[in-house]
Amino acid sequence: MPKIITLTTDFGDKDYYVGAMKGVIVSIAPTVSIIDICHQIKAGDIREAAFIIGTAFKYFPKGTIHLLVIDPGVGSNRRIVIVKSNDYCFIAPDNGVLSYVVYQLKNTKIVSVTNKEYFLENISNTFQGRDIFAPVAAYLAKGIKTEEFGEEIDDLLTFSLKEVYEDGQSLIGEIIYIDRFGNLVTNFTPNNLSSLKNINIRVGDYEIFQISNSYAQNNPGDLLAIWGSYGYLEISVNQGSAEELLKTKKGDIVTIKETK
Amino acid sequence: MPKIITLTTDFGDKDYYVGAMKGVIVSIAPTVSIIDICHQIKAGDIREAAFIIGTAFKYFPKGTIHLLVIDPGVGSNRRIVIVKSNDYCFIAPDNGVLSYVVYQLKNTKIVSVTNKEYFLENISNTFQGRDIFAPVAAYLAKGIKTEEFGEEIDDLLTFSLKEVYEDGQSLIGEIIYIDRFGNLVTNFTPNNLSSLKNINIRVGDYEIFQISNSYAQNNPGDLLAIWGSYGYLEISVNQGSAEELLKTKKGDIVTIKETK
Amino acid sequence: MPKIITLTTDFGDKDYYVGAMKGVIVSIAPTVSIIDICHQIKAGDIREAAFIIGTAFKYFPKGTIHLLVIDPGVGSNRRIVIVKSNDYCFIAPDNGVLSYVVYQLKNTKIVSVTNKEYFLENISNTFQGRDIFAPVAAYLAKGIKTEEFGEEIDDLLTFSLKEVYEDGQSLIGEIIYIDRFGNLVTNFTPNNLSSLKNINIRVGDYEIFQISNSYAQNNPGDLLAIWGSYGYLEISVNQGSAEELLKTKKGDIVTIKETK
Repeated sequence: MPKIITLTTDFGDKDYYVGAMKGVIVSIAPTVSIIDICHQIKAGDIREAAFIIGTAFKYFPKGTIHLLVIDPGVGSNRRIVIVKSNDYCFIAPDNGVLSYVVYQLKNTKIVSVTNKEYFLENISNTFQGRDIFAPVAAYLAKGIKTEEFGEEIDDLLTFSLKEVYEDGQSLIGEIIYIDRFGNLVTNFTPNNLSSLKNINIRVGDYEIFQISNSYAQNNPGDLLAIWGSYGYLEISVNQGSAEELLKTKKGDIVTIKETK
Repeated sequence: MPKIITLTTDFGDKDYYVGAMKGVIVSIAPTVSIIDICHQIKAGDIREAAFIIGTAFKYFPKGTIHLLVIDPGVGSNRRIVIVKSNDYCFIAPDNGVLSYVVYQLKNTKIVSVTNKEYFLENISNTFQGRDIFAPVAAYLAKGIKTEEFGEEIDDLLTFSLKEVYEDGQSLIGEIIYIDRFGNLVTNFTPNNLSSLKNINIRVGDYEIFQISNSYAQNNPGDLLAIWGSYGYLEISVNQGSAEELLKTKKGDIVTIKETK
Repeated sequence: MPKIITLTTDFGDKDYYVGAMKGVIVSIAPTVSIIDICHQIKAGDIREAAFIIGTAFKYFPKGTIHLLVIDPGVGSNRRIVIVKSNDYCFIAPDNGVLSYVVYQLKNTKIVSVTNKEYFLENISNTFQGRDIFAPVAAYLAKGIKTEEFGEEIDDLLTFSLKEVYEDGQSLIGEIIYIDRFGNLVTNFTPNNLSSLKNINIRVGDYEIFQISNSYAQNNPGDLLAIWGSYGYLEISVNQGSAEELLKTKKGDIVTIKETK
């Protein structure tokens, strides 16, 4: 059973960056299987990357190593960390990009990566994805123990997730992610809405009065709300883009209240 | 010899969708080899996806499983189908996306996928690529027989391909696809033109009087016609884009007639 | 240890081109491992592709086969070449795309690929990546000797690299590449600057007075110079895009002189 390393970066697809990382990995661990999760994270957008990996990681087999390089602090003294749970192993800059992940994990061991034995010989100040992250992931895949890479730490940097709050009669949430189809992912969970019977969802000037069971239950072009694959309530347009229709952006407010 | 699963979707590259599907596949079938054909199908464009897979599938080894998720009807009661020929196996929504494929296959067996034993435990209404298509493809790769997934059917949904027709002295075709280089793929086949000697090809206000054997046989910037790799006549510009020069779009008419 | 074939093309990601090449490769060499370096080379931009592969190739294990299809002369009588050194093997059109590579290699053997035994049976005039390059790479991976593919040649087409030159008190270089972050890669190497103490770097109307050790050593939005991962001096903006700030393009001049 081949060991899996996944890659999530903001490197895009026009440069040699992702290719070089893969070359370094297979040079050290030739039989590893590399799977891309996403390389189109907006440049330096740590929150977006945190959301993507926080959703994706659990669909991979136990033992998978998830490698993240969204690293605006490259070359500074920001730490590089390995976070290991029973099932998964993550390597990332210590900048909050593992926030969604660690809120879902128990019994994690966190190590600050400092042992240059597992780095490339020449370390650039601009591309440590190639020079540090990739070889460390490859050595992890080869079975080197986490404690070999550096000292254990307990102060991983995380940001707090944006949670729905009550304001009088209303629940106030927001749009936390927009996908390629223009679906607006909110931070409302089933728990937030479990006590409500008839609901009114408001986004900008638009109102939605029910949660659909499928896009196709609505007419083409209709605005709708649906429980999405990220585990959150999403605002969508059947066969269209809610982002275009509503002209919304990340951070915009979504309010839900009970109606009679 | 590792089993191959190919992926063709409209998921793009900015979300976790393709990564999650791959994670699900390798969780079930760890030694399978996954190859991306295309994830940049225009959102919900079934005809474009049908054209792409209809051209690509036959370049893969016998035994390859081709997985397609262009699925605007996700969560509705549209069926999910396995189409199996002697050489290939396809899994796709039953929405016409296999139209180009089935016109090229003989002796197909078609199954409507209903056996939840081979689905993920929790099935979302928005991302069945992850929850149904990916695990079914993985179990197919592991050797589960098609009949295990559901009942055989004989009413697969297909659309008819747009064929060239005669109108007086002229053959009337159209542009069915435009590639990243701006090459205009028409629906003219060698059969359509086999009886013509001297030809006049007309697209918009432009005329072409011969079929070239290579781009380079023309001057840079020149408009030309050439038999392309899809098996159809293409309108191209040497070292340029016919799409830009002609300001054409899919569906635009191309006429060919004999000259003296 | 699986044999590796890397792919670098200008095929983009919206068509079936890359998928078909991979299908052809695994049909011939089922256990080969295929790694994408880049498919977003600007259409027909031989110099950009030459730069990318010239940087990336050496991060792959010895024995890797690097396949390049940036081929505006497809279907003409331009040659197809295999360039083999002790460590790597390249297959590419003979159009200069290996210029950066061959300046770094010693003891290369160069073969003009002509033996149709290793091509697909039907060869199109528009997509020889699929019909010739892919099968040749696959047969190379299977161990067929380079001399089997055609005659040895010694007149590979290369362009000369743009080197920094002196003009009075100044060193004159230029921007040779711009990456997805808007970093401006110049052609200044550490050798060019080794004798200078205090420097003044000028790009357009902007001046920079030192070479930074990290982006983060500067304030967000600040313009800076830094030794980049390509081995050249880069002009960057911390947490921003130098391309946007300076409104520069490839070929723009960068001058460096000593200050007191």
